[in-house]
Amino acid sequence: MSLQDAEFQWPSGYRAAASFTFDVDAESCALAEDPATADRMSLMGHQSYGPRVGVPRLLRILRRQGVRATFFVPGMTADTYPDMVRSIVDEGHEIAHHGYMHERMQGLDAATEASILDRGIESLQRLTGRLPTGYRAPWWEMNWHTPELLAERGFRYDSSLLDDDVPYRLQPDAVGARSLIEIPVDWALDDWEQYAFFPGWTGSGVIESPMKALEMWSLEATARHAENGCFVLTNHPFLSGRPAKAYALERLIEQVAQLDGMWIAPLEDIAAHAETVCTTGRTHRRPGVQFV
Amino acid sequence: MSLQDAEFQWPSGYRAAASFTFDVDAESCALAEDPATADRMSLMGHQSYGPRVGVPRLLRILRRQGVRATFFVPGMTADTYPDMVRSIVDEGHEIAHHGYMHERMQGLDAATEASILDRGIESLQRLTGRLPTGYRAPWWEMNWHTPELLAERGFRYDSSLLDDDVPYRLQPDAVGARSLIEIPVDWALDDWEQYAFFPGWTGSGVIESPMKALEMWSLEATARHAENGCFVLTNHPFLSGRPAKAYALERLIEQVAQLDGMWIAPLEDIAAHAETVCTTGRTHRRPGVQFV
Amino acid sequence: MSLQDAEFQWPSGYRAAASFTFDVDAESCALAEDPATADRMSLMGHQSYGPRVGVPRLLRILRRQGVRATFFVPGMTADTYPDMVRSIVDEGHEIAHHGYMHERMQGLDAATEASILDRGIESLQRLTGRLPTGYRAPWWEMNWHTPELLAERGFRYDSSLLDDDVPYRLQPDAVGARSLIEIPVDWALDDWEQYAFFPGWTGSGVIESPMKALEMWSLEATARHAENGCFVLTNHPFLSGRPAKAYALERLIEQVAQLDGMWIAPLEDIAAHAETVCTTGRTHRRPGVQFV
Amino acid sequence: MSLQDAEFQWPSGYRAAASFTFDVDAESCALAEDPATADRMSLMGHQSYGPRVGVPRLLRILRRQGVRATFFVPGMTADTYPDMVRSIVDEGHEIAHHGYMHERMQGLDAATEASILDRGIESLQRLTGRLPTGYRAPWWEMNWHTPELLAERGFRYDSSLLDDDVPYRLQPDAVGARSLIEIPVDWALDDWEQYAFFPGWTGSGVIESPMKALEMWSLEATARHAENGCFVLTNHPFLSGRPAKAYALERLIEQVAQLDGMWIAPLEDIAAHAETVCTTGRTHRRPGVQFV
Repeated sequence: MSLQDAEFQWPSGYRAAASFTFDVDAESCALAEDPATADRMSLMGHQSYGPRVGVPRLLRILRRQGVRATFFVPGMTADTYPDMVRSIVDEGHEIAHHGYMHERMQGLDAATEASILDRGIESLQRLTGRLPTGYRAPWWEMNWHTPELLAERGFRYDSSLLDDDVPYRLQPDAVGARSLIEIPVDWALDDWEQYAFFPGWTGSGVIESPMKALEMWSLEATARHAENGCFVLTNHPFLSGRPAKAYALERLIEQVAQLDGMWIAPLEDIAAHAETVCTTGRTHRRPGVQFV
Repeated sequence: MSLQDAEFQWPSGYRAAASFTFDVDAESCALAEDPATADRMSLMGHQSYGPRVGVPRLLRILRRQGVRATFFVPGMTADTYPDMVRSIVDEGHEIAHHGYMHERMQGLDAATEASILDRGIESLQRLTGRLPTGYRAPWWEMNWHTPELLAERGFRYDSSLLDDDVPYRLQPDAVGARSLIEIPVDWALDDWEQYAFFPGWTGSGVIESPMKALEMWSLEATARHAENGCFVLTNHPFLSGRPAKAYALERLIEQVAQLDGMWIAPLEDIAAHAETVCTTGRTHRRPGVQFV
Repeated sequence: MSLQDAEFQWPSGYRAAASFTFDVDAESCALAEDPATADRMSLMGHQSYGPRVGVPRLLRILRRQGVRATFFVPGMTADTYPDMVRSIVDEGHEIAHHGYMHERMQGLDAATEASILDRGIESLQRLTGRLPTGYRAPWWEMNWHTPELLAERGFRYDSSLLDDDVPYRLQPDAVGARSLIEIPVDWALDDWEQYAFFPGWTGSGVIESPMKALEMWSLEATARHAENGCFVLTNHPFLSGRPAKAYALERLIEQVAQLDGMWIAPLEDIAAHAETVCTTGRTHRRPGVQFV
Repeated sequence: MSLQDAEFQWPSGYRAAASFTFDVDAESCALAEDPATADRMSLMGHQSYGPRVGVPRLLRILRRQGVRATFFVPGMTADTYPDMVRSIVDEGHEIAHHGYMHERMQGLDAATEASILDRGIESLQRLTGRLPTGYRAPWWEMNWHTPELLAERGFRYDSSLLDDDVPYRLQPDAVGARSLIEIPVDWALDDWEQYAFFPGWTGSGVIESPMKALEMWSLEATARHAENGCFVLTNHPFLSGRPAKAYALERLIEQVAQLDGMWIAPLEDIAAHAETVCTTGRTHRRPGVQFV
């Protein structure tokens, strides 16, 4: 083991990368946990804020800043808000897969998980006319069989694991042929922990200031830029689409854009590049087997 | 779907609005959750601080700043502290409806909820001589039948939903005639999450500094002002009526007042204006039905 | 109800008061909740830090700053660490009552609570040779019968309620003769919520910076000073006796001492003064009865 | 009891000490709590980040800053990531004992705990060729019999108790001959409470900014330096090995290194020094017995 991993090679002229990603969960993430949340008008409205008000505001910001982003859209959100999804596509952003109903994948067998993946693919394909190339597990919860399921379905990348700072090639099975790119995430780069609160549903009860999130995420971008890393931020339009949080996000985008040689791109572009430089794959195994 | 929603039209000379609102829950919100809290002398005193000490201090601040505000008063609070309610009225502020005993409305059938609404109306009307025009659901928890119940009783506005940044016309039933104005709220603009703590009753255990709340709320006011939005702050006199929190609130009022073209008004005035500009209504439906 | 309560009259030359109080719970507050915590060596050591290391450091700070303080000492702490208590007395500070084993008083009948009070009195009297004049309920939890029990035992003041910003005369029973002074507290002025954490025992999991507590408490002192109020800070030596927290506390004492006309005194002195100016008493009643 | 404890004597030329310690828990701390966490690919990857990515980055920082540190390595981590452990040794840092599988020791009888200690010793000795001299209890949870078990096995120090600011000699049994050095820790000096979050496994839901941790830890180092104390920081590579947190840690190391007369050393060096100056031992006893 060398102390200095081989430096990740970004495209010519770039020394690091940043991607702004949005998980457009809307009502799905509440309904999947507990169908009875459908009875709670205030909670449902709080969630519908995302596609109705948050996404348009975020699209305006992204256009103003000249940034292309990735939107992870559960199939249910796509089926419910098709015009919203079309407006994202029209602005040139990427639509990627995020389950059908933001299902909690933990403990699901492969067949059940496969049927959810397929249902989400159908919804997105019906709406956008193309297969999604990217996947992010709801709640970022991958099963050991998930990478194989994704590779089988032609996904080119996943962005759900928390095990590195740069993209790598994920080989579901060391003896199999298929692989995909993993672009890791980080709980410190998710707006849910900073902002989410709804009594009886989610949140610690603490709501952080957008200025705290801006300061923290800006430091993270700077630190990753200094190490030729990859900064992947996850925002939820029902949270970060609200006025002060969106304001802070726009300031963050400006700060990130000023980092010299920072490549701001949707995840599909980062994955396409990673495919060219990540020549060998990593196979993860469930603990119990020696795995390094 | 256009990226830019039609801009909300504020009264001539104004570009945005702000309303300072106070939920005078006093003992009711504890007693409704668990009648046994009545045995806890310290908790009861902590809650009674609101009407006895907090409200007089807040009234002094509002008078000093020349601000008219909206006080949401559960019927039980009105029955218990009638002089306190009269002092609010005498200062020219609005008294609005907040349940009878700050009941948890979640899951209640329409008849039960209606009887609670009526009981609260009786208490306020007996004391103030007029019907309340505004309603805020205890715990901001609306049922799908609640708007209809409110419209039937002549309420002109509700302020409990979290689904927009500006007022809109809420049409309980698309085929019905009645409607009312919704003036949305935001969990990030409530002092409960920042400050509330009582062991065995409420709070995350974290108590934020009033300076943090001031910074966060001031940013929110600025961001909403910049987008021609509506800033609705919710404070509880048993929390924000205490010295340092009240100090921070007064600084916030000063900062908001300095925003060019910011209309500071009680919710009833904002609702009256919204009635003139919100010509078409929105009807929300319980998920399961396609709703956009 | 007048908007401006009659201003509290502080001794000549003073416009506000501050008291630094320390609850020397040591092991008692854990053992009373769960006797099995006695098996946890690390937790017991964490608690014993208070009397062994925290109190000596805090006494050095108080001497350096020329401040006399109030130490609330459960009987069990006094019995276990008699030399520590003597060192507090030798420095001229006040020793007051805090239960025998920091018992959770909630729901106890008057006879049981009385026997606990008596046991705590015995421990303190045996050690100090005098009856304590002050009481603070463990967990700040008073029962409606507690004031009567305190008055019967000759206590001159209590400091457990959260219902005002200045001392007042508490009349346990409007028709009875005895009364005592109440000097209210505030959850925002307690170090437990800012700092306490021990897995499986207490704390939200968030540990705040001493600089945050300093900023918040300093603002609170300033706001109370500006309103002729009373600033009562509660610290626990097993928390605020640790280096950085004690450092922040000393800075706070310096800042409070610089407020013009701020009277820094132990609670017994504040109570003695309040006895002279609080001529009429307040009787609190359990909700269910009209109480204002 | 004197107010001023005898000042701890640091080596000539030094007035205080600091030690940077790393608990390389990896998957063990999750698996020991619940073996079913092995099924959660994302959680396992989040934990494996520590030995795979975090430790190399931290070793680079330590080399750059010229600091020798102590790494507490559970046996399971050593067995799973032997090259990682060798890289720590090659850089001249200390490897110490942290259980076999980060077992929750609370309530274990002496025989069971002894067998865990022995299993951990075997793993470390097999890999490093020497017996570990230092121990830190998983979750910092010591039993009253643990010191005796440690002394029997030749450990020279423990670093799990929270009962002082400087090292001392811990005498498991006042009448026995063996003893060891205790170098206390502090929950405020652990990165877990500041940063850890994984849904359904750990964390309060609040994730603090690295700048907050830097400010708090820097103050703690300054306060301990001013009092001739000992600053022991605990970091977890799966947390503080991530980019922005590692950046903040490096800034902290720089600030600590600039404190005049601050001795930065691994715990084994501090323990070796303490052995020469701590001539009398302290024996702790389970409450129930008078213990000071």
